[in-house]
Amino acid sequence: MKAPGGERTEETGLRGLSLNQATVRNLTVEQAVGLCLRHDIPAVGLWRDRVADLGLARAAAAVRAAGLHVSSLCRGGFFTHADPQARAAALADNRAAVAEAAELGADVLVLVSGGLVPGSRDLGLARRMVADAVAELVPVAERMGVRLGVEALHPVFCAGRCVLSRLADALDLARPFPAETVGVVVDTYHVWWDSQLASQIAGARGRIACFQLADWIEPLPADPLLGRGHLGDGCIDLAQITAQVLAAGYRGYAEVEIFSREVWDAPPDDTAATVRQRFGELLGDL
Amino acid sequence: MKAPGGERTEETGLRGLSLNQATVRNLTVEQAVGLCLRHDIPAVGLWRDRVADLGLARAAAAVRAAGLHVSSLCRGGFFTHADPQARAAALADNRAAVAEAAELGADVLVLVSGGLVPGSRDLGLARRMVADAVAELVPVAERMGVRLGVEALHPVFCAGRCVLSRLADALDLARPFPAETVGVVVDTYHVWWDSQLASQIAGARGRIACFQLADWIEPLPADPLLGRGHLGDGCIDLAQITAQVLAAGYRGYAEVEIFSREVWDAPPDDTAATVRQRFGELLGDL
Repeated sequence: MKAPGGERTEETGLRGLSLNQATVRNLTVEQAVGLCLRHDIPAVGLWRDRVADLGLARAAAAVRAAGLHVSSLCRGGFFTHADPQARAAALADNRAAVAEAAELGADVLVLVSGGLVPGSRDLGLARRMVADAVAELVPVAERMGVRLGVEALHPVFCAGRCVLSRLADALDLARPFPAETVGVVVDTYHVWWDSQLASQIAGARGRIACFQLADWIEPLPADPLLGRGHLGDGCIDLAQITAQVLAAGYRGYAEVEIFSREVWDAPPDDTAATVRQRFGELLGDL
Repeated sequence: MKAPGGERTEETGLRGLSLNQATVRNLTVEQAVGLCLRHDIPAVGLWRDRVADLGLARAAAAVRAAGLHVSSLCRGGFFTHADPQARAAALADNRAAVAEAAELGADVLVLVSGGLVPGSRDLGLARRMVADAVAELVPVAERMGVRLGVEALHPVFCAGRCVLSRLADALDLARPFPAETVGVVVDTYHVWWDSQLASQIAGARGRIACFQLADWIEPLPADPLLGRGHLGDGCIDLAQITAQVLAAGYRGYAEVEIFSREVWDAPPDDTAATVRQRFGELLGDL
């Protein structure tokens, strides 16, 4: 037996729980690190803006000193621009993100593709632009030893945020590249509704670079980005999806990432305690 | 040449424009019929609650007297219930809907499946329940000469309203039954984001029972059900999807169905004029 949320040594299940910083987004990196330590959470998912607030070197030192694993750095991407200069700027920013992920020792740099190209209704154009950008980023990632994680976002975000709407879309984009450099992110909140999810997860064997969890809460708030809740509070069969992810060979962390006004307004120690408790109840034996 | 919105005699394109009553939902059936006549719109999609307000026989007489075609009756479905009595009641209501569609001479009875079974996170259970209910409804529809149209709704409605989230899901459900009895509905607002849409539409040859159009508007309003707009005001490539639907052999009406607070608040004659004008501009040559 292992303590819920703790590291496990056998190679048969989840490596443990990770707290994505977006779940406690009012905290600095140092505060989030302290929170993880207090609640025996062995890993953290960091956000670039918060890392920049502290400074990259200090952030890297803080997580190392705490003995925390960095399960992801969020995020790169947003590649879809009509203006070539804007595209070049996005690529430069992504190169910087790769360097940051390397310095932090993150398991993966999460990439959110971007939505439709401004002024265009052409989804194919946007998707080709994303593929081209990833192809340009791959040598940089290889050189730095960083794994890219292509994330599919829920179709409600297709127009404005991410033209990759299903795990299958992310896999199609990743497949031409070596799996150790370009993986995919499975985020329960974004993909749970898909009737073909099980086969897509099975087909992602060797490619799952990050596993993020949040529950789907109804009714949705005004901003659907915030319609997430603690594991178990919504309608997603999280244990089933987690079992599928494990059956596909994933052995990394289960990273809890909850965008929710209500969760953000709660005391962070309450949030961390709930995250850890729910992880133990729902996924502790997986 | 044909007038935009008017009937066309050749069998190579859309049969014409239809106004779904939900676009002018403050109007009675008689008012909606009058609106179509004033704006040279040859067909109408009706809603059961509005038909019931007037009485089925009077509603049927009103559309017949006006020479209007009924391109759809909205809607049956909502089959997912934990309680067997509630399931039986839903089936009884759907049998009544089939009879109403027959009386109105509607091209199709639109079916929205229903969401997750209350108290359950099992999408497979909900989908099997829908399939079982459709199988029970098919003999009724055959006997009455009514075509059922299985509609996929955008994944944002999966939990609460419709567990069929892609055209492929609707096709999988329809395929075991004769195409003349169980078709599918293609609604641009619900399926536009899907990277595999083109191949699904091609695979729907002979099954497309209804083609509904609305544009996707961002930012989404608080209720995502209302995030629709007039054709051309949003980000969907409507001409391309319409061309794909035609290439798959569809020769029925293009039914404009816009759930939008703004459109509902506009004078109905302005709405009808805009619907007709946009149809002519975007789809008139298709």
